[in-house]
Formats: sequence, C-alpha cells, structure tokens
Amino acid sequence: MTEKYMFGRPFETDAVVVDVPEAQGALPYGSVSVTDGFCFTYRMGEDDIVYGLGEANRGINKRGFCYVSDCTDEPNHLEDLRSLYGAHNFLVVAGRETFGLFFDYPAAMTFDVGFTRTELLQVTCRRADLALFVLTGESPYDIVRQFRALIGRSYLAPKFAFGFGQSRWGYAAQEEVRGVAEQHRRHHVPLDMIYLDIDYMQDYKDFTISEKGFPDFSALVEEMKQQHVHLVPIIDAGVKVEKGYDVYEEGVENGYFCVRGDGSPFVGVVWPGETHFPDVLNPDARAWFGRNYRRLTEQGIEGFWNDMNEPAIFYTPEGIADAKEELSRFLAREIRGESLWGLKDRLAGLANRPEDYRSFFHRVNGQMVCHEDVHNLYGCYMTRAASEALEEIAPGKRFLLFSRSSYIGMHRYAGIWTGDNKSWWSHLLLNLKMLPSLNMCGFLYVGADLGGFGADTSRDLLLRWLALGVFTPLMRNHSAVGTREQEFYRFERVEDFRHVIGVRYRLLPYLYSEYMKAALGNDLYFKPLAFVYPEDEIAVHTEDQLMLGDEIMIAPVYTQNAIGRTVYLPEDMLFVKFLPDGEISRERLAPGLHFVRVAVNEVPLFIRSGRCIPLADIAESVDEIDTGSLQVLGFEGAEYLLYEDDGESTDCRLEGHCRIVR
Amino acid sequence: MTEKYMFGRPFETDAVVVDVPEAQGALPYGSVSVTDGFCFTYRMGEDDIVYGLGEANRGINKRGFCYVSDCTDEPNHLEDLRSLYGAHNFLVVAGRETFGLFFDYPAAMTFDVGFTRTELLQVTCRRADLALFVLTGESPYDIVRQFRALIGRSYLAPKFAFGFGQSRWGYAAQEEVRGVAEQHRRHHVPLDMIYLDIDYMQDYKDFTISEKGFPDFSALVEEMKQQHVHLVPIIDAGVKVEKGYDVYEEGVENGYFCVRGDGSPFVGVVWPGETHFPDVLNPDARAWFGRNYRRLTEQGIEGFWNDMNEPAIFYTPEGIADAKEELSRFLAREIRGESLWGLKDRLAGLANRPEDYRSFFHRVNGQMVCHEDVHNLYGCYMTRAASEALEEIAPGKRFLLFSRSSYIGMHRYAGIWTGDNKSWWSHLLLNLKMLPSLNMCGFLYVGADLGGFGADTSRDLLLRWLALGVFTPLMRNHSAVGTREQEFYRFERVEDFRHVIGVRYRLLPYLYSEYMKAALGNDLYFKPLAFVYPEDEIAVHTEDQLMLGDEIMIAPVYTQNAIGRTVYLPEDMLFVKFLPDGEISRERLAPGLHFVRVAVNEVPLFIRSGRCIPLADIAESVDEIDTGSLQVLGFEGAEYLLYEDDGESTDCRLEGHCRIVR
Repeated sequence: MTEKYMFGRPFETDAVVVDVPEAQGALPYGSVSVTDGFCFTYRMGEDDIVYGLGEANRGINKRGFCYVSDCTDEPNHLEDLRSLYGAHNFLVVAGRETFGLFFDYPAAMTFDVGFTRTELLQVTCRRADLALFVLTGESPYDIVRQFRALIGRSYLAPKFAFGFGQSRWGYAAQEEVRGVAEQHRRHHVPLDMIYLDIDYMQDYKDFTISEKGFPDFSALVEEMKQQHVHLVPIIDAGVKVEKGYDVYEEGVENGYFCVRGDGSPFVGVVWPGETHFPDVLNPDARAWFGRNYRRLTEQGIEGFWNDMNEPAIFYTPEGIADAKEELSRFLAREIRGESLWGLKDRLAGLANRPEDYRSFFHRVNGQMVCHEDVHNLYGCYMTRAASEALEEIAPGKRFLLFSRSSYIGMHRYAGIWTGDNKSWWSHLLLNLKMLPSLNMCGFLYVGADLGGFGADTSRDLLLRWLALGVFTPLMRNHSAVGTREQEFYRFERVEDFRHVIGVRYRLLPYLYSEYMKAALGNDLYFKPLAFVYPEDEIAVHTEDQLMLGDEIMIAPVYTQNAIGRTVYLPEDMLFVKFLPDGEISRERLAPGLHFVRVAVNEVPLFIRSGRCIPLADIAESVDEIDTGSLQVLGFEGAEYLLYEDDGESTDCRLEGHCRIVR
Repeated sequence: MTEKYMFGRPFETDAVVVDVPEAQGALPYGSVSVTDGFCFTYRMGEDDIVYGLGEANRGINKRGFCYVSDCTDEPNHLEDLRSLYGAHNFLVVAGRETFGLFFDYPAAMTFDVGFTRTELLQVTCRRADLALFVLTGESPYDIVRQFRALIGRSYLAPKFAFGFGQSRWGYAAQEEVRGVAEQHRRHHVPLDMIYLDIDYMQDYKDFTISEKGFPDFSALVEEMKQQHVHLVPIIDAGVKVEKGYDVYEEGVENGYFCVRGDGSPFVGVVWPGETHFPDVLNPDARAWFGRNYRRLTEQGIEGFWNDMNEPAIFYTPEGIADAKEELSRFLAREIRGESLWGLKDRLAGLANRPEDYRSFFHRVNGQMVCHEDVHNLYGCYMTRAASEALEEIAPGKRFLLFSRSSYIGMHRYAGIWTGDNKSWWSHLLLNLKMLPSLNMCGFLYVGADLGGFGADTSRDLLLRWLALGVFTPLMRNHSAVGTREQEFYRFERVEDFRHVIGVRYRLLPYLYSEYMKAALGNDLYFKPLAFVYPEDEIAVHTEDQLMLGDEIMIAPVYTQNAIGRTVYLPEDMLFVKFLPDGEISRERLAPGLHFVRVAVNEVPLFIRSGRCIPLADIAESVDEIDTGSLQVLGFEGAEYLLYEDDGESTDCRLEGHCRIVR
C-alpha cells in the first residue's frame, strides 16, 4: 500500500506515474518537523537494515553513513563522499518495522542513516515542499516492487546494447575508431559498440562532428555497422556560445536556455568554453533540444550517452571575477601556508559552486524557477528530452540511451552509467554493491566503467572487472585520457580477454531475457541475497554476492592476487566456471561456505537448485548470436522460460515472446 | 645465506649491521643493468608471491602494483598511491624460486611488481650506486628472519607504551588534556598516554611549550603520571626561523642546518612558517638536535613522536616566487578552464617539490651531499638523533619513540605510526595488511590512527578499528582538527568502548611478551598465515587474517553493518570472543571456513590448536595490571612461556625473564 503525504507546495517532478490520493493524519512511521526546513526522523531498531538510495556510495545496507542527494560531477569517489551524480530518494527500512519511503523533492536532500546517532534515521532538506510516499508491504522486496509500479516501467534497451562496448576519452579520429574495431575483429574479441567521447565533436559543440577527425561520419557509421559495431556518441549538457553555431543561435533566439535573474542567458564554462544550458524543464525548450539528436540519427546513429548534465560547471565568469580579485589581493601580500592552501581550495571551489546554481533560472509554466530548487532534475530532463525526441524521430524503435546524472523518473527513459570511477579494486566492489540499489530505484540498464576510468589499470584488475561486467546490462570498458590505455590489446595474452568477453555473448540470451522480464514486470534484475533468502541471516548480510534474475547468483573476485574467493550458498547450487579452453566446469555444492578457485581468466557463476539457464554458442556480435540452438546449463530436468523478441521495437510484452527451453 | 653485490659508490646508510663480504660474479637471481641508472629485472613465475616493502600500499602480496620508495607527506592514501612515508626496500620473491632482496639505496626507487607486465619484477633507480643484498633460505619466513638478523635488533618499547593512547590534533591547553584523562578515568576506560600534537608548542617551535596553554607543563606531566597517564609530545623536523629562539640560534651558529648550494641555511615552510632542517646526517648536528630532547625529558616526558620528517615542505620561498610570477601572468590573461586547473595543480605542486629536495645539502664527513640523493634517510636519522640522545640522557632506560618517516635501520631506534589515514573501512583493512610487511622490515612497534585521522569517523568504524588496535603494539585513537571528534565519550553507550579497550589490558601480558620475544629473537610479531601454513594454499592466499605470535590468529571485522565475518581456519582452533558483559565465549572450531558472529562491541580472536595465552584481570593502566594472578585461556593442558621484565630498562634478554604459565 502506498500513502502520499504532501508538505508545502511541491514541484511536480513526474517521478511518480500513479495517481495516489493525499493521505490525512499522522505518518505511520517516524515524524516530520517543518519548523526549520523539512526533517523526517525515525528511530531504527538495532538490527534494522536500510535499502535503497540508488546510485549512492557504500554498501547495500545504507546504514552508518550520511548521504546527500545533490547531483555532482565529482570524479573522486572516496569512501567518505556523500554525493554522486544521481538523486534517488527512495529507501526501505527493514527490521522491527518494515516500510518504504520516497521523498519526491528535486533539490538537495540529506539522509543521515544512523551516522550521527546509530539509531536515528534523519532525512532533511531546506524547504518543506515535497511529496512523501510511504509504502508498506509484506517484505522489503514486495515494497520495492510496489515502488517500481508507482514510478512506471523501466527503459527498454535495444538488444545490441547488451553487447560489449569499447570506449576511451580520447578517440578523436576515424582511424582510431577503425583501429579499435579492427583489433577486436582480428583477435575475435566480441564487440558491438564503440563509444565516442567528447573528441568526436567539432570544438565540443553538441550535435556536430569533427571535420578533421571524421570527414565522412555517416560513411563511417555505416562501415562500422557492416561490422556489427554501433558508434555511440556522447552529448553534453552545455551548448557552446559561438556566433553562427546554429544550435546556439536557435536557443538564444527562442529563449530556450536557462537565464540569469536579469533574463540574460546563464553562462557556465565547461569543455567547449562558455556554454548555455538548455532549459530542459521548459517543455518547448526540451522538445527543441531533443530534436537536435536527429542530426546524428540521420547519420545512422542509434545510441547516445548524455554527460555533464548535473549540470557540471567548471566555473562561471562571476566566479572567475571573484577569484581574480582574491588572487590580486593574495599577490599583493606576504604569502603564508594557510593562504596558499586557501587559494588552492578557492580555485577548486569554482567548480559546481552553490552560488552559481542559485543564480540561474528555468521557465516552467510561465514561472521562473530557481535552478537550485530543481537541481537534481536537470540530467533527468535532458535525457527525457532525448528520449521523447527519439520516439518522435523513429516511433516504436528502441535506442541505446544512458545518462550520467539522473533522478527517479529518468529510469523510464534511459539507463545510467555510474560515472568517473577509478582503476581501484575497491571500485570493482562498489560497482557490485551499487547494482541492486540502482535496480530498486528503477534503473535497470546500468554499468560502471570496467577497468576503471581514472588512474592506471592493471591487466588483472581489468580481467576481474570484466568478469563482473559480463553480468551488467551495460558492459563497457572506458577510461580517461592520460591514464594507461586499457583496450584488451594493450595487454599480454589477448586470448584471456577474448574468453572472458566471449562468455558475455554465450550468456546473452539469458541476460537479455532476465532484463526484459524485470523491466516488463517491474522487477529486479539484480537482487540482494536478502530478498531471496530473507530467513537466512548470513545471506541477509552478504553484500559481495548478488542474485541475477531467478536462476543465478554471482560472486566475482574483487581482490588482487586472489586465487579464488569464499562464497556463501544459501541453498544447493551448481558452481559453474567458464574455463579459458572453452570448457565449462560444473560442481554441485551444498549450502554453506565454500572457497572456490577462480583464475583471472575464468568466469564463475552459481545456478540455483533446480534451475537452469540457456547458453548460446560463441559469437562476436549480438547479431550473430544464434538463439535457435541454445544449450541448457544447470540442474537436470530444469527448464527455463526464455523471453525473446526482435530486440528493436518498443512493442514488448511477455505474452507471445516467451518459450520454454530445456 | 646473504650475498652482497656492490654497484658504484653507495652512500653508507647504516641499515645493515652485519659485515657481509662483497660477492663476486653474476647475481643468482635476475639481472642488473647499469647503463641508464640502475635496473634489476626478474621474471616471476605465474604463481609467485612477493612479500615485503614494509610501509607500502595494497596487500600482503605486493604483486600487481608499482611502488615508489620516496618518503612523502601525502595524506590521501588512495588505492593508486605509490609512495607513503617510509622507504623499506626489502622484498621476498616466493614461488618457483624463493629469495630475498634488499636494495640499500637512500634515494627514490621504483618497484614495478608485475604491474606493467604481469610476470616482470623491475626495480629501478636513477643512480647505480647501491648495495644489493640477496638472501636465500629454506622459506620466505626463514629469509625474513635472516634479514632481520642482518639489520639488527628491533626497538624495545617501554611497557607503558603498550597501553591505550588518546590523541587529537587540536589539544592546545592543559584543561583539554585534563579533560581527556578525567573522562577516561571517570568512565573507567583504560588510558596510559595522551598525545600532544603541534598545538602544545609555542608557535610550533620544537622543544618549547605553549605558555598560554600549558603555564606549568612539568606539573601537568607529574599530575598526569599520578593518574598513570604519560604525555607524549610531538617533535617536528623543521626548526622555526626566529631571532632569539635558542634552538634556531644554536643551529645557525654551529652550521647544524641543511644548506643551499651557496652555503646559506635552506628554508622550507612548514607549520611554524619558515624553518631550517637540522642536518641529521651530520653526526655533530645529529648529536646537537638530539640533546634538545632533554628540554622535555627534564620536565618528566618519557615518550615522543617525530613528525613531518620526510621532511615535509609546504613550500619554499623559491617555489612561491615562481608561482607568483605565474599567477601574475595568469591574471593578465583571459582565463580558460585548462589554465585554471593548471594553476590549482601548480599551487598544490609547491608542496614537497622535487626541485626543492634537489636544492639543499647535507654535510657528511666533509662532503656536501645533495638531499635528493639521501632523501629517504631523513626521518630515520632524525629519529636516530632522538634515540641516541635519550640513551645518553637516561642510560639504560627505554623511551617511547616513534616516527612518521623511516628507512630500514630506524627500526633499531623506534617504531612508526602509519601516518595520515582516513576514517574509511578500507583503511582498517589496509592497516591490517600492512602489519606483517612492517614487521618483516624490522618495524615491530607499529600502529595506525584508530578510527581514522582524516574524514569523519562513525561509532561502529571506531569500535571495529579499536578491535583491531587491541592487537597492535601501538594502540592510539588519533584524528585531525576539523574532523568529527572521536574520543570515546563523543559517542553513545560508552560501555562498549570501555569493554573493547579493556580487552587490550587483559591481553597485554601476552602481547608484551610476544613483542619482546619477537624483538629479542629477530622474529615476527605479526605473520601472514602463509608463513605458518605454507602448505595450505587457501591460508597462503588469506590476507585479511594474521597470526600474532605463536599462539593466536586475529580476524577483525572490517566491513560496515556486518554481523560477523567469514574466517578460514588452517587448523583446529578455539574461537574466543570477549563479550560486552565481561564473559568470554569459547568455541572449538574445525579446520576450514566458518562464519563467525561478532557484534560491534565484541573482540574476537582464535587460539591455535594445543596453545593457550595468559589473561590478566581488568586494569585501567599498564601499571595496574597484575601479572601475578594470570588466568590461562586456551586448549586444555597447554602452557605458555611468558616473557616478563620491569618494562623500563634496556637490559632485556629472554634468559631469566621467562616463566611458564598454565
């Protein structure tokens, strides 16, 4: 059951798609104070677990830390970082009392989940203008499914998007792109996508193509498609200020950009230099911005990633003016350590300044809305702009689309990738732990930069991370300019990469089927063990293994130099290893703890008792997977209900698309 | 067996205390090139493990990363950080071939342990002037013990130093110190030391006392001692430049400071502002600097911690002059993002600049030695200065002494703490993994800042970290100004802290005994499981459990919200838990994997088959521990050889100080 409590005058975010009548009376759980902003307080039981918060730091159980929903471009995902790129204000308290909470509020919001005081859950924000949904159900899992129905069906990715993608910030010319494709095909390492980061554009201008790097872009797109490779360009939020650049001119002319208090377009400096931000909260501006994607779809593009849409701001002219003044004062004086550090922090603080976010406005239904009050919606609405436009451009066709910044509601339009992680083993584990939380908030098409974006990766880290990425809907190797190159062919013994990535394609019919079932059924693709084995206390507290669909459990190796790992089996399972020689080892394991050996070039998974999964032959692209001759892997006599469709059209339903495989 | 290979003209570091004749002929393992600097190369077997490197990042097995011995004050111990505060150039390759290597070279040295190429170990440095010791033996453990004999007996800490210490950067007045002691005594939380960070000094001047904060320091020292609490002041490397300050005046007058190329004292700006660095490599200057410790011992001080002795440099006048020029140019131009970030990095780069380390000199035996060439010795020699002086000040008396920066050889003079960690769960695990590596390099008196130095801790993190700290010789809760206060009384339910810290005191007779046995026998206090169970492949690869002495294994909980953890038992063990009510649970567990429940207010340990440990009654200070009425905890019929002495004198030997407890 869902109850809605209204406070003040909430901004309509469109996160919720079901009309819930306003509840009367007191909250069933906790209490709210609105005297100084908004404060929800609940006293947790000692052993209560708190799930949710989507793209957030730390564990599956969110307890013991303080999180702030405040979409931020922060590339250092340290253990004490409170804000990432998304704002997913849904959580489930499970224990003494079990209930869900969704705080539909698009500005900064703080979740102190037993950090300051072990037993206190406190949710606070500056303005008491929000809708609070309280969900009750028979279990955390049940509550999550109710919530998913409340916020509407998740984005359906095209089938090709379940292939492997190679990316690097730095690909700037068609020769490089061709080289990437050529290396994969030559070494028979599967590939379905090559991602284009900002360097494919002309001077970082949205919807343009570098003339020098890509003299005939549409021919390249077609050439790649012949090789079953989709090019997936990035689109950034900021539109470059440049006379004669038509997107800029159109936006200014029609008042489609966010404005300062005086009505002039707001200037934020990002990659292209000075930019304006499309006012994606204004329906006309949103439709206009979205129409621009056609410039690329007309060249054959079928997928996009939206970036820098928190929106990230390197600095503003106003910020620089302040800083220059301070620098001058500094230069005129004697310098001491403190002032030096202060100055450094001051320069760093020019990025994503609260003052800047407070200084510009959206025009929504004739009202000026301060950006700060709706900050967390920007990436969501930029991506909605793309999605709605793509549906107009090619009705009924699925596009690959994912975004960095997000708010709940965006899950209906696109997926997300989890932003600028690092080549750290701890980020492999963070990747794993974040997955079920993202699913709970509706984001099913998700993945992290495998191998790590920042810092230098190593061969073993990349291989181990790929062995997790085999299971994430978005499977992409991506890294930053200036770091060690990490395409598979930069390392010795390429056959190991061929094998590990190849396993993805053998499993793809299962993974795609489970994805579609989860999306169409408002269900989870990744589940904590706790949702499947709620009576098993060890399973409930296991955070380094996940259930994937109804058939398998995954337990990747995430420590360096390990020869395997310990795994907890809540039930009888079949331990399956895809061996580098193409063989598959199977071992039936009893419930309990096991140390399983897993080499760096092997992919492990566990099939639940009495279940099986379909297995395809090796293929080098999604197009080439033959689902007509699937084997079955698992317990004897088991059968699997396979979802299958054309992988392209949005006309998806379980009826008529499922068949039994045994 | 140890062989010594000489290259070029090594600087005498005094790391090795045994006279090893120079070997002739080729190296028995690997090869060396001296054409462009020095490069040692060895091709590792696929499953080889590499131990060692002391205070270094990552795991017990050092493979898969690239480390740089280059003592650095870097407070962000991220997973990709290559240099910490120490330079411990000893490693053991274990596998296809097993041997040890000690590169006695006091400047920056790079250890690529299979990072760039999985199978290659490469050790490189700029100048081919070094001594390379190659050790062979019957096992990695055997090689480590041989190495320990080679570098001489480890520092012996006084017994009180095995108590619990409370610290915070920020204690600036005697009332605060009294308050800390009072809170501990009132709540019956044991305490033996209160540490004084830089604010106890007058204007950060070494060997001075803040007149305002501590109007009668020696009376306070005495008052605290009456409560069994030792005050332990910090000493920084840099001596403030201030006319009339006697330490400064003496140093300048006698030429005891490091000098620039032109002979003028080198200026590095640190906490006090401009400072000079004592030329601790010059024996006269070293003796002079050490004598100054008497200014504090005369006031009753019996322990010190040496800090900022990499030496850390915030900036130099030369660096600022360069930066000012750049800032001016920047101000005169249009600002773009790149130049802004560049400027920020430029300001950050003023700290610990290679140019600065290249610009000053030591005077050793009449030679000018560029600091860069002996950089990694500075902290070691500053601490040697203190140790040698304290032996003169009070012959035969043990002092508490530890340092931040270190080189192998310093282990004979003092312990180390592992510097500015963070309140991160991952740093609790890093703390654990670093311990045996430190021991291998001779550093036995070691510990990390429990609860974390930087970032905000939480109650559960502090409790879990204390439950590891119970076992580390140095057990100290320390945190940085500006972070959440983390003395136990800042949190709810103080009885949990009383209990966990109390367990330390019950175990102290055992811990002290094992420490002394390890020190006197050139043995390890903390061992990897691999050294005890070399035939057990799972044990060999277990890095989140440690052997402590010959009787116990520890396996702390290091993940948030865990109700316990999985532990691997290579043999029959007694699982012991110190319960919050004072009771002790005992459960005999068979070899293999077990999930053991451990609440946040419990301390677990495992007693090896057939062994036992002595257990004291609860005490609130080391002085109050009654070793006359020890119980025994462990397997029936077992007996323990207890080392015991007065805890104060340096006249230590096993003979006559051991008795059997059963």
